[in-house]
Amino acid sequence: MTTDVATLSPAEARRRFREGLVTPTAGWSAGYAQANLVAVPRDYAFDLLLFAQRNPKPCPILDVLEPGQFTGPLLGDEGDIRTDVPAYRIYRDGVLTEEVPDATEYWREDLVAFLVGCSFSFEDALLEAGVPVRHIEEGRNVPMFRTNRPCRSAGRMSGPLVVSMRPIPAEQVADAVRVTSRYPGVHGAPVHVGDPEALGITDLSQPDFGDAGTIRPGEIPVFWACGVTPQAAVMESKPPLAIGHAPGHMLVTDLRDSTLLVP
Amino acid sequence: MTTDVATLSPAEARRRFREGLVTPTAGWSAGYAQANLVAVPRDYAFDLLLFAQRNPKPCPILDVLEPGQFTGPLLGDEGDIRTDVPAYRIYRDGVLTEEVPDATEYWREDLVAFLVGCSFSFEDALLEAGVPVRHIEEGRNVPMFRTNRPCRSAGRMSGPLVVSMRPIPAEQVADAVRVTSRYPGVHGAPVHVGDPEALGITDLSQPDFGDAGTIRPGEIPVFWACGVTPQAAVMESKPPLAIGHAPGHMLVTDLRDSTLLVP
Repeated sequence: MTTDVATLSPAEARRRFREGLVTPTAGWSAGYAQANLVAVPRDYAFDLLLFAQRNPKPCPILDVLEPGQFTGPLLGDEGDIRTDVPAYRIYRDGVLTEEVPDATEYWREDLVAFLVGCSFSFEDALLEAGVPVRHIEEGRNVPMFRTNRPCRSAGRMSGPLVVSMRPIPAEQVADAVRVTSRYPGVHGAPVHVGDPEALGITDLSQPDFGDAGTIRPGEIPVFWACGVTPQAAVMESKPPLAIGHAPGHMLVTDLRDSTLLVP
Repeated sequence: MTTDVATLSPAEARRRFREGLVTPTAGWSAGYAQANLVAVPRDYAFDLLLFAQRNPKPCPILDVLEPGQFTGPLLGDEGDIRTDVPAYRIYRDGVLTEEVPDATEYWREDLVAFLVGCSFSFEDALLEAGVPVRHIEEGRNVPMFRTNRPCRSAGRMSGPLVVSMRPIPAEQVADAVRVTSRYPGVHGAPVHVGDPEALGITDLSQPDFGDAGTIRPGEIPVFWACGVTPQAAVMESKPPLAIGHAPGHMLVTDLRDSTLLVP
């Protein structure tokens, strides 16, 4: 299964999700960047863009579409952000009210869509460096946690840093840092290594989003800033409507991961 | 003179400009970042922030203040963007109507100020690498040119790329590229080396902003993206009011240039 979906073109992956398939996207269309989605009304778009600007580790912008626009160059101008994500979360006044496979009926002309980089982009590079990626091994969604670290607020937008966690063998933590540092456009280096309680995370088996995975003896929990952070800000900041991807269920783009690599 | 002002603290430099001194700021407060200023009404701020996001080479954001805010952490929370720039340009409906040493009377509660990185930040590094910086040698303002290259537009914001030009001895062009590449937060590597006509620049002795300088035999004109670009976008996009710095007359900040250096 993993091998199979890894070789799909982004356009083919988007087509499958458009036709209704609902699954986490880690490992899909290897070599192509996946994006977090969050769309808010035009009236909130400046605050959210400034929030992203001020919090570049959790919110690295890949693209922002014009108000009402639902395709763009990262989707070959044929994809559709309203249908091509496997699952969507709909927020009304900051409250998650629905999780749906198609967001077309919720779309409004004044919505501004933000495509935010995703750490899945550096997972191929981790694997190539021999660093295990547990949630791919186990065919699950990556575990994500709300932390006790506030982001820098911007206007009405504020909220906690959300992180993804990957258990890494202690002797490979340095490799994981080294490899992911080279991808600042998709969260970059870890924000925290070990000591989950310092981030306010009390139980690694109870992620706030995604699935818990196995942590083996000798493995250290390593935390990367996560693109679900804007959705946590939506929950705190309560715009009348927001559309996000379901965590781990990303928008597969035509952007090559290699273009996000810095020398 | 240059040596003298190079050693002033940013707070002291800002105080002199607040008290009325009008002069280009190249060479002032060595080691501290200087910023381009552009402030637009809240209603235009999203378009301008997205314009900056889409055109990071000319518009590297150092900070964006909240609507109405006129100081911030980059100014030690004591500076004042309305008074601390040596000279301001006031635009009404995109037309430059006044150049003034104090913008306080034009300030409005709905203005959002953008502080954009300036290539002056890498000039110390050029000098340290033995690369001459002509406009500092000659005590003039850097020459800047509007090009024929359009920026990526964003909503109502569109306009041409503006560049600054430094003549570099041919055998040191590679050094200039190498040194400035390490400062992506303040325009980074040149956008163009030689061949001004390809940028639509027909006469290097007639800059659109700043002062012409000497170009010696064996020197190549090297062009860097310039933070005057947002003002060129203001001229095209015609917000009802905008306040910018007079080109080359920058806001001296407390941010150290060294923090803008990437490894």
